This record gives sequence, C-alpha cells and structure tokens, in this order.
Amino acid sequence: MAISLKELQAPIKDDLAVFEQRFAMSMKTRVPLLNTIMNYIIRRKGKQIRPLFVMYSARLCGEIGERTYRAASLVELLHTATLVHDDVVDESYERRGFFSINALWKNKIAVLVGDYLLSRGLLLSVEHDDFDLLKITSRAVRDMSEGELMQLERSRFLDITEEIYFEIIRQKTASLIASCCAIGAASAGAAEPQIEQFRLFGERIGLAFQIRDDLFDFGDNESGKPTGIDIREKKLTLPLIYALKQVSSGEAKNILKLIKSNKPDNEKLRLVTQFVQSHGGMDYARDTMNRLRNEAFEAISDFLNRDDSGVNMRKLVDFVIDRRH
Amino acid sequence: MAISLKELQAPIKDDLAVFEQRFAMSMKTRVPLLNTIMNYIIRRKGKQIRPLFVMYSARLCGEIGERTYRAASLVELLHTATLVHDDVVDESYERRGFFSINALWKNKIAVLVGDYLLSRGLLLSVEHDDFDLLKITSRAVRDMSEGELMQLERSRFLDITEEIYFEIIRQKTASLIASCCAIGAASAGAAEPQIEQFRLFGERIGLAFQIRDDLFDFGDNESGKPTGIDIREKKLTLPLIYALKQVSSGEAKNILKLIKSNKPDNEKLRLVTQFVQSHGGMDYARDTMNRLRNEAFEAISDFLNRDDSGVNMRKLVDFVIDRRH
Repeated sequence: MAISLKELQAPIKDDLAVFEQRFAMSMKTRVPLLNTIMNYIIRRKGKQIRPLFVMYSARLCGEIGERTYRAASLVELLHTATLVHDDVVDESYERRGFFSINALWKNKIAVLVGDYLLSRGLLLSVEHDDFDLLKITSRAVRDMSEGELMQLERSRFLDITEEIYFEIIRQKTASLIASCCAIGAASAGAAEPQIEQFRLFGERIGLAFQIRDDLFDFGDNESGKPTGIDIREKKLTLPLIYALKQVSSGEAKNILKLIKSNKPDNEKLRLVTQFVQSHGGMDYARDTMNRLRNEAFEAISDFLNRDDSGVNMRKLVDFVIDRRH
Repeated sequence: MAISLKELQAPIKDDLAVFEQRFAMSMKTRVPLLNTIMNYIIRRKGKQIRPLFVMYSARLCGEIGERTYRAASLVELLHTATLVHDDVVDESYERRGFFSINALWKNKIAVLVGDYLLSRGLLLSVEHDDFDLLKITSRAVRDMSEGELMQLERSRFLDITEEIYFEIIRQKTASLIASCCAIGAASAGAAEPQIEQFRLFGERIGLAFQIRDDLFDFGDNESGKPTGIDIREKKLTLPLIYALKQVSSGEAKNILKLIKSNKPDNEKLRLVTQFVQSHGGMDYARDTMNRLRNEAFEAISDFLNRDDSGVNMRKLVDFVIDRRH
C-alpha cells in the first residue's frame, strides 16, 4: 500500500510546524518586492522531502532541536535557490503547478532571488555559529553546480558511461540529500563516524531518487506514458546507458543518431523507449535502485531497528523511491 | 598627477603574485568545460581593486599572510560570481572588452558558473576554518542581492529620496568593499574594534566609489560625454536626486515625465544632464564624495600616519575616487 506524505509528516508534526515558522523567518527582508516573492515561494512549497530527511536523521541520533530546525532551513533555502536558478536556466515558466519566479518577475529578478536565498542560508548558519553544519553543506553547493555543468558538457557529446553517469548524479542530486542526513545527525549531537554513516545513507538514497526520476522518462510512472524530457534534452540516463551496452556498437550508434536527429520528439521517444525496454534497461535501473536502497539501510542499520523512528525513516525512503510521480 | 594601477601594485607585488596563484588554485575543477571557463575568467581579470583593499588593510594592521591571500580570494570569487550573474541579468554580451560568459556559453552555463564561484568562495573559507572572515563577508552577500532588488523595485516608481539612494548603494556596492577592508584587517590579527574601524573605512570608500560611477553618467569622465546608462535604465542617482529637490514639484514632475517618456535617449540625456548641471547636482555629488573620502580617512587615521603603507592606502583611495573611467 502506498504511503502518503501526511502519514510521513504526522510523527513529527509539531517539529515541522516550528521548522516552517523558522524557515519563513529566515527569509524575511525589508525590501517589499522581495518579501512578496518570498511569500509566494512559501505558499507554493513542495513536498519538503529534504527537511524530512534532516528531521528524521536527527530523531534517529537524538533529539530534534533548534539546531535541527536551522539545519532543515539551511538545506531548504539552498534547494529553493537551486530551483529558482534552474527555472531561469531551463526557461521554465511553471513549477509545481504555479508560475515560476522568472515567469512572473523576469530573469533579472529570479537570478537575484536565487542569490538572495543562498545568502540567507549562509547567514543563518554563520549567525548561529553552526560552522559544522555549514562545512558539511558547502561541499554540496559546489557539487550541485559542478554536476549540472558536467552533465551539460557530456550531453553535447552523448558519450556517458555508467561510471560517469553515477559521478554526475552523485554530485547533482545525491550530494544535497547526503548533506541533509549528515547535518540532521550532526544537529542532534552525533559523533563523526555516525555523521559519516548518515552521509553515506543519504548519498545512496539520493542516487536511487535520481534513478526513479530517470525511470519516469521512459514511462515507469503513474500515467504509464514516457515523459521523455531527458531524451528531448539529449541526456543519457541509466536505463538507456545500460541498453546501449547490450547491443553492437553499430546498433548503439544508430540509436544515438536517432536521438540527435531532427525527427519529431514523439517518434523518437517511442523508438528509444522500445529499445530501452527490449534490452532490459528498465529492469536494470529498477534493480540498481533497489540495491542502493538496501545499501542505504545497511549504512545505518544499527539506528533503524531501535524504535518507531526507524520504521518511519524506512517509510520515508520507500515513499521517495517508490513514488509514481 | 594621476596615479597608475602599476604604482599601487608595486609595493605588494610579491604578495599579489601569491594571491593570484592561490586564487587560480581555488577555482580548479575536474570538469573540463568549467576549467576552460575559469581560465577565461582569470585571463580577462579586471583591476582587482578589492583584493588590493584586502591586502593594504592587512598590511596596515600587521603582516600579509596565508589568511590574507584567502581573504582576497574569497572576495574576488564573490565579486566575480556577481559579475557573471549581472551579465546574465543585464543581457550584457561584453565585459572588460571581452565577451561575457553568457555571450560565449549561454545563460544556462553562466548562471551555474556564478553559483560555482560562490560555492568555491564558501568552501575556501570553511575548509580553512576561516569562520571569522566568512561571518564578516556573508552579510555582504545578502546585502548585494537585496540592494540590487531594492533598486529594481524603486526604479519602477522613480521615487528615490537621498536617504533611500544611500541605503541602496550601501548595500549594493559599499557592503563588499567594507567587507574587503574588515577581513583584510581580521586576516592580519586585528581586534574587533579595529576590524570595525576598517569596515567603516571601506563602507565610506564604497559609497564614494559608487558616486564616482554615478557622475560618469552625466559626463564627469575622461571623454566628457555623458554615458547615460542609468538614465536609460530609469535609475535615479545622487546628482539628479539633488537637482530635483532644488526645483518646484511641478518642474521635478516634468523631468521625471521626460525620463519615463519614449523620447530618443540622446535627446533625453542632453536635457537631463543640462538640468542636473544647472541645479548644482554634479557639484553636490562631488562634494559628497570628498566628504566621504575624508570620513574614510578619519575612520582609520591612527593607522594611516604610521609608515609608507598609510601613504599607499591613501593613494589607492585616491585612485578609486578620482578615476576618470
């Protein structure tokens, strides 16, 4: 049976309410236009999966406290900054069913709003001397932009091996979720080796999270229809990378030629999806995802079996990895 | 006699060479495309005024050392990030006579490169436990985006008073130069009260620096021709704000109407410049600039009269404030 977001939030409902209040406070400014935009961002908030990972990691290591709320605010500020910049970068005019910041207020303002959110995350940490949290997180900030750029560069040549694919998604997606779990643990007073366990746990989850996203592209989702966004942008992801390795180099070249071609997107998508399916790309990606989930649980197994919090963390992981949209 | 940049660099030539080497190192990455862009940024470097303020402040407070090089790299990374994002925001295709990053590599990459530079500044500080330097600087990062946004918001209504003008330029321009001087001092082991003196010094210089820029717009520059960039963007700056206050509200309204109108830019510029000149706007701005310079020198007077370093710092200030382009 599918788990709902509400179910996941329930056990830490009060803590989440405090976090939301702290998060909103950290965005406050004297500039009226900026306040309007910040309120808009708060209203159209997403699932806030990252703060949930911070809180549950803290809970597994000890008590959720002020430092945990700040840790959760820090990652949510960074994540939101990234989304605002991503929308500029991708010229997206919609996000979560709302207009994007760049759609409503133009690129100029959106770039500055992203910078502002980054700076608020930074300030929140330095003003409370949370240097340990900042140290863990700042590497993720670098990794995210580096990973995106590496992907942009590689997609020009369409020469991504499985090894490079994992390197890209480790930086682009997994590094932030790894930070969430590590700073959650750190915020509750965990020692270095435990923080490292949680970092590793989060990294595995982050990798699986991205593979789940990649599977959507080929129709493994609620609607059953391939979304085909990656193919359109000429991004090679795990199911396709695997399938390409199962055939002769001639056949692989033909598929890459098809992706680069000017054929209509629908036609392309149909052929590529068929190719991936028939060479076991989907199954391979799903198996990999499940292997990563097991590795994640393994990394913090001594924490997961203690009490209800462990059960809840498992549910959160399943929610993220088994989601259908 | 005008001072040259070379003259200013000469007394700390060796230190500048070490800084440049450290700065280049801090930008290194395993992503080839990103390395290409970083090398491009290093080649087309500007006057590096901000690192000079860091170094001279350090020198006045003690010895220039590794922490000073890192402090200078930190502000130069942040400043460069801002420039890269500014070019996206303003759709500028040129910077310092070179193509801008967004012109050569598109907006997508430029936004990510700006984020990458910000993250490198952050990492450089946390990896060396320079938390005091980061604490001083992080407020400037917020101030810069907040100030830009405040200016964007206000320029829509053309209702900027002198008080608001100073608030905007304090955030947008002066906060970073204030940080440069403060972290320069801190890097050489200065105590809190001294760091605060240098912060105040830098803030005054930053305000004067911006007013110098504003004066260019009305023809107070090498060529004698108004550049008129602010007028075109409907930004009210000090010379014009002052002039508008010298006339009846009816006359002021007519000038604002002219600025908002669809009249050709040349025509507009000629009329507005004439108006500003004839109501003492230029003189007022120049007087204010010189008052700020004196206040700056006053703030660190106990340091300026000790030895040659004081003389050099004065020269640096004059170079910045008396520049003609």
